[in-house]
Formats: sequence, structure tokens, C-alpha cells
Amino acid sequence: MALIVQKFGGTSVGTLDRIRNVAARAIATQKRGHDVVLIVSAMSGETNRLLKLAHEVTAVPDAREMDALAATGEQVSAALTAMAVQSLGTGARSLLGHQIKIQTDSAYTKARIRAISGAKIFDVLRQGQIAVVAGFQGVDDNGDITTLGRGGSDTTAVAIAAAIGADACEIYTDVDGVYTTDPNVCPSARKINRISYEEMLELASLGAKVLQIRSVEVAMKYGVPVHVRSSFSDVPGTWVVGEEKSLEDVVVAGVAYDKGEAKVLLQSVVDKPGVVAKIFGALAAENISVDMIIQNTSTGSADAASTDVTFTVAKTDLNRVKPLIEELGRSVGAKAVQYDEDIVKVSIVGLGMKSHAGIAARMFDILARESINIQAISTSEIKISCLIASKYTELAVRALHDGFGLDKAAQAPAPAEPT
Amino acid sequence: MALIVQKFGGTSVGTLDRIRNVAARAIATQKRGHDVVLIVSAMSGETNRLLKLAHEVTAVPDAREMDALAATGEQVSAALTAMAVQSLGTGARSLLGHQIKIQTDSAYTKARIRAISGAKIFDVLRQGQIAVVAGFQGVDDNGDITTLGRGGSDTTAVAIAAAIGADACEIYTDVDGVYTTDPNVCPSARKINRISYEEMLELASLGAKVLQIRSVEVAMKYGVPVHVRSSFSDVPGTWVVGEEKSLEDVVVAGVAYDKGEAKVLLQSVVDKPGVVAKIFGALAAENISVDMIIQNTSTGSADAASTDVTFTVAKTDLNRVKPLIEELGRSVGAKAVQYDEDIVKVSIVGLGMKSHAGIAARMFDILARESINIQAISTSEIKISCLIASKYTELAVRALHDGFGLDKAAQAPAPAEPT
Repeated sequence: MALIVQKFGGTSVGTLDRIRNVAARAIATQKRGHDVVLIVSAMSGETNRLLKLAHEVTAVPDAREMDALAATGEQVSAALTAMAVQSLGTGARSLLGHQIKIQTDSAYTKARIRAISGAKIFDVLRQGQIAVVAGFQGVDDNGDITTLGRGGSDTTAVAIAAAIGADACEIYTDVDGVYTTDPNVCPSARKINRISYEEMLELASLGAKVLQIRSVEVAMKYGVPVHVRSSFSDVPGTWVVGEEKSLEDVVVAGVAYDKGEAKVLLQSVVDKPGVVAKIFGALAAENISVDMIIQNTSTGSADAASTDVTFTVAKTDLNRVKPLIEELGRSVGAKAVQYDEDIVKVSIVGLGMKSHAGIAARMFDILARESINIQAISTSEIKISCLIASKYTELAVRALHDGFGLDKAAQAPAPAEPT
Repeated sequence: MALIVQKFGGTSVGTLDRIRNVAARAIATQKRGHDVVLIVSAMSGETNRLLKLAHEVTAVPDAREMDALAATGEQVSAALTAMAVQSLGTGARSLLGHQIKIQTDSAYTKARIRAISGAKIFDVLRQGQIAVVAGFQGVDDNGDITTLGRGGSDTTAVAIAAAIGADACEIYTDVDGVYTTDPNVCPSARKINRISYEEMLELASLGAKVLQIRSVEVAMKYGVPVHVRSSFSDVPGTWVVGEEKSLEDVVVAGVAYDKGEAKVLLQSVVDKPGVVAKIFGALAAENISVDMIIQNTSTGSADAASTDVTFTVAKTDLNRVKPLIEELGRSVGAKAVQYDEDIVKVSIVGLGMKSHAGIAARMFDILARESINIQAISTSEIKISCLIASKYTELAVRALHDGFGLDKAAQAPAPAEPT
């Protein structure tokens, strides 16, 4: 007997028929002798409907009220899913963030989980029932409702799996696993059987969008085996597991791209200690995530003591941060501030980079052969990212994918299923 | 400076424009120097939408899950209303049942409030903000979400007004007050300026539908002055106040009718001690409210030791209780069980009955002159109700209304407004 967490996203609970389907799947797992905890997102479209209402009321809705509003989406699907399980003859109880409790900080709309008590979940399981947990939501120290940000239900699922010591956390989604790259962009993309947390982390953060990045961090921290799979079939998906278990002898695991970032250039900033810290400290204080940061010495400048600072922020944050950036630009003596939204970040990710030299050079060569200009580069232990003009997205992704042999790489076998 | 509770029903928050209107009204009250607590219902149609979803999932939704589902309606309007207040430049915070806390028993879908803490509300008011409370909902000892039944937001409003010692509880609705009878049925109906809790209690329970009956009970218990008024105008409505303040020198305050009841007849029940207790004990155990109860000695029966028992239950409960009633009928030896849904209960209500004799006789005479057969009668200190065929509803209401002079009775002046 295993303890299984099953998370279903908005599409998987998008209609009442699909909710019944989710209920049937959970019951089938229970009938095979397992304890089952379901995590559900809001029905697809519901969160957007609620956000739209809020934005019709006011241009900048208060974050606390936004969370109280948005959390209703998951509350509705948790209650309906519990009813659906009951209607099929199996006991079930919905559990909300403030009931469990899923304790978070007070960073409304992007809260982080601090602690989860498994007591209420075990109460439900002990009665032979299925626990249906509302994803995406928590509660802060004041009892205020918080939400975990887009895709937060993945994090709820993995954090609960960690808190109750689940044997596996199954993430059901509308795709059947993690691919070597976006199949819509690159027809030769293949499903990955097994990938390490580290690789998934880089792929998720770069826009693979199958798993919320924080959920992978939590899974890695607590060693939760995550199985990303389709809610519309029984075909095994992709296992996200520890490095020692990932076994794949490939240098590059996947190619990702991210069109969600905008480039900001602060031209000819005074080049003295503390200036860069001031810029990014101010952005951090506003909870603005900055992705790439590149500082070039501004050799062309008449003033030797100045430098160009380039960084990227989420396009969705850009309008909100523009006034702050303009003000920062003035205060650090920038000659000009430029924005560019027509960019894409393409990245290659792979644990194998650690032990293989020359991967970066090979990436730059592949792009150069397609005459694609690289505007900025950033690297990590297992990832290399290049900022390029967005019109080259497809060309770059395909060239990199096949150039690194992902169209024909050998696959490690999937691990045995606990179910 | 006064402390004012303002409750807005589903129609009053039915659109975003109306929510803005509610926000503006609350702010205007605050600007006159008062502390304001808003209580909001779900946007009109929302509760029905949620109930429909539940009933599409399963014929008999679990009551606990039903409440978790339904409570989202008020959560949404509380958050949106708080945002609307903020967008007009005034601070506001939404407060949910489990946040305040509004502690209830665990009778899901019809829970009763046990205690309310004013602390969180005063926290908000102390900051010069408007507290926006989600109506209809509470939380039980397990932390499970409960709802107070249809119209429960009225009870939330009055109970909160009592808990925080508010100077007035304003109930905003889509009518401009309480009328001597239903104006749709009787064109000569007049708005009542002032009415006692006792009279309102009888009128509300009999279908006036302006105020939830339990809210009037709570208002009476704690002496909360309630002002029922239109959310679409500034015209004073009807004050519901203590008997000593109601002052109206009229015998009958209003005529009510209720089509929501169905008649059940248990024919030739064994007439021995404990039988009636068994019947109504079993119904009470199922949380079925029984309204009129009439026991006739069945003189026509061959078996002298038998009696007919007639009672009424809500039509909405009828399908649910039929199996129980059939079983009860068999166990108490009833010869037959009959149901009649084509009935209406017409009632006259007035404190003046206490000191005026012959009111009942006058009522029966008015009905008799219209050739309306009375099927059952029930009386209280300040109310006389007759069960008649539903086709006579309009005829009976008009005859009673004008017959008791309600079309031209003198009105007591409204009390001075605290606003």
C-alpha cells in the first residue's frame, strides 16, 4: 500500500464530466489499495474570470483582496470534486488552505509555504476517505487567505506529498509528460522518461510550463518523486527524480525558450560601488523578479566611469516597474533607458554539462550557423541561455534541439510505478 | 458618531456597477462621521449557479461540501466590494466567516450563529477603514465552513450589529420597506414606517421575505434597531424596533400569505399517547421544519381510538420527507397518507390582537363572505393563519387587507435617522 498524491490542473477539472473522471481515477487508485490525496486547481477559465472581475472594479486590485477572490476558484473545484467522489460511492472531504493549515508568508498573490500540518489529511484517510485539497491557496499568520501564484497547485501538491511522506506525487496535466523541447515549435521533440530535479528546475524556469518551478524546488528539497502525466490516458509520463536516479547519459536534456521576459537597458550608469546593488535592491523591494543581469563596460562612452546595465524582467511586470526604473535610471545617472519586448531567451539544459567541456561554444556555433545574433548570454552549472530576437525562436530551438542530438537520443527506462 | 452596519443583498451587488454604488454609499456614510461595517450577499444568480453545479454532479450533494461551495459566492462579493471601496480612495478589508470568527453549530446549510468576535472588525475600523464582511457564512468548531440558509446574510448583519453594539443595522434591499401586504397581489398595500420585532417575525415567517426570520429573532433578542430600505434610493424605509417604540395604534399590522407549504394528512392514526410525539420527533430528527399542526378527532371512523393528523411542511422538503412520512404512517397505523400542494396560508398579524377581542371571528367572516373554505386554522398571540385553496390567494389577501382597514390606516412617524 502506498500513499499517493494526485494533482489535477484546471483543464483536468474544466467541466463536470472531467471532474467525474478525476474522481473515478482517484477511486481506482484507492481500490488498488492506496491512500489517495487529491489536489485540484480551479476549473479552467475560472481564475481568469475572477481576475477580470477584479480588474473591471479597479486597475490595480489590492493584493490581499485579490487572493481572497482568487482562492474561491479552487474552493469550488475542491467541493465539487469531493461531491463527485461521494456520488461514485466513496467517502471524500474537501480541505481548504486555512483548514489544513497550509501556513504561508504574507506575500499575497505569490506567497510561499512555510509549514503544512498533515493531521487533517490523515484524519480523512484514516476513515477510508479521499482527501480533496484545494490547491493554490494558503493562510498567513493573520488568518488572511494567500495564493501561491500561477501554477501554485503544483507546489501545494508537492509540499503536501512532502509533509505527509507520500510515496509519489502525480501531476496530471493536459500533456503526457516533459518533452525535450516544445513539440509545437520542433516536430522532432521527444517525451523524456526520466529527468533530474535540477534539469527540470532549469526547464521549468525557462518556460517548459509543465511544472511550476517552486514545486520542483520543494520536490528536490524533500526528495519527492514527481510523475508528470496525462489526465486523459494511462500512459506513463515523465518522472522527475533525484540526480542519482536520473541515469540518462545525455549531455543536454532539453531546449527551452521563454518569450515572457523583456529587456531593460540602463545606458551609461555611473560606475561606482553600490550602484548595481541600489538598482536591484530597489527592484527586489518591489518584489520584481529579475532574470538575466549583464553589466558591460561602456567603452564607447566619453565618460570612462560609466557602464551599461542590461537586465530582463517579466513582461507582465514591465508596466508596473517602468516608473521605478525611470526613477532609478535618473538616480544612478543613466543617460537613457531602453526597453525591448521583442526578445526570446533560448536555453539548453543538462546535467551532462558539468562533465562535458565545450557545450557553450557548440551552442554559439549552432546559432551562428543560422546567422542568429546573440544579444546576451547567461550560464549556470547545467544551463546556457542566450537572448535573441524573438523572430528567430523556432529557427533557434529546432537547430539547437537537433544539433545536440535530442531528436534521436537514447532514453533511460521509466522507473517502476508505485501504482 | 455612530456605528452603522449596512447589509446589501444579492440584487444590490448583482453587477460591478452596483457594487461600486454600494461602495459609494458606505463611503458617504463614513464621511458623515460614522464607522461602517458592510455585509454583502453573493452577487444575484451566483448562489443558484453554484447549487446547479452541485446538483449536476450529484442528486443529493453532501451538506458539508455544499456549504464549502456556496460560501464562495459571498467571498467573491466581499473581496470585490472591498476593492471597489479602495478604488474610491477609502481603505477597506474583506472579512470571511472563518476570519472574524462567526462561530456556528455544524448544521450545514442551515447553521446557527453561536458567537461572533468583534475584534477583527474593530481592528479594521480603528484604521479608519470600512470592514466588508461576507454574509451567509460561518465556521463550526472543526473549522468547517457553514452557511446560514437562504437569506442568511440578514442574520449575519444583525448578529454582527449586536456583537459590536452597532447603533443601527440597515438592510438594503430591492424594495423600499415592509408593506402591509404584497403590493403585487393587493394594489392598496402601503409601506409601514415602523413595526415591532414581534409583528415582523410573524410577517417574515409567513412569507413577507423582506427579512430572514432568524435575523429578526436576533434583532429582538439584542434590541438591534433594523432599518429595511431600498438600495436604489435615499427614501427612508421601514424601521423594525422594540414594541415600546412601535407605537402604531393599529390592530392588524399586515396580511401575509405563504405558498411554500404543502399539507400532509395522516388519516386514522392510532390515538394513544406518544404517537404524535413519535411523528414530529422523527421529522425534527431529520431537521424538517413543520409549520401548522392540527389534530382532529376522527369522529367518522369506525375505530373510535383513531385520529386524523394534519400538518404542513415546506414544499421544497416534501420529496425528501415523503419516504419518511410513508414509513411513519405505517408505524403509527395510518389508514392513508394524503398530500396537497395546492394550498396557501393567509395570515393577519398585529400586536393589537392582544388587546382586541373578536379579530379571529372577523377574519373568518371576511373569508366566508368571499365563499372561501377554511381547511385549517392556527393562532398565536399576534397572528391568525388560515389554510385555504391556493386559487383564492389574491381574493383572500385583498379582502383581509381592506377589510381590516390597512388600505387607509394612519401611520406612525418614522424615528429620527442616526445617519
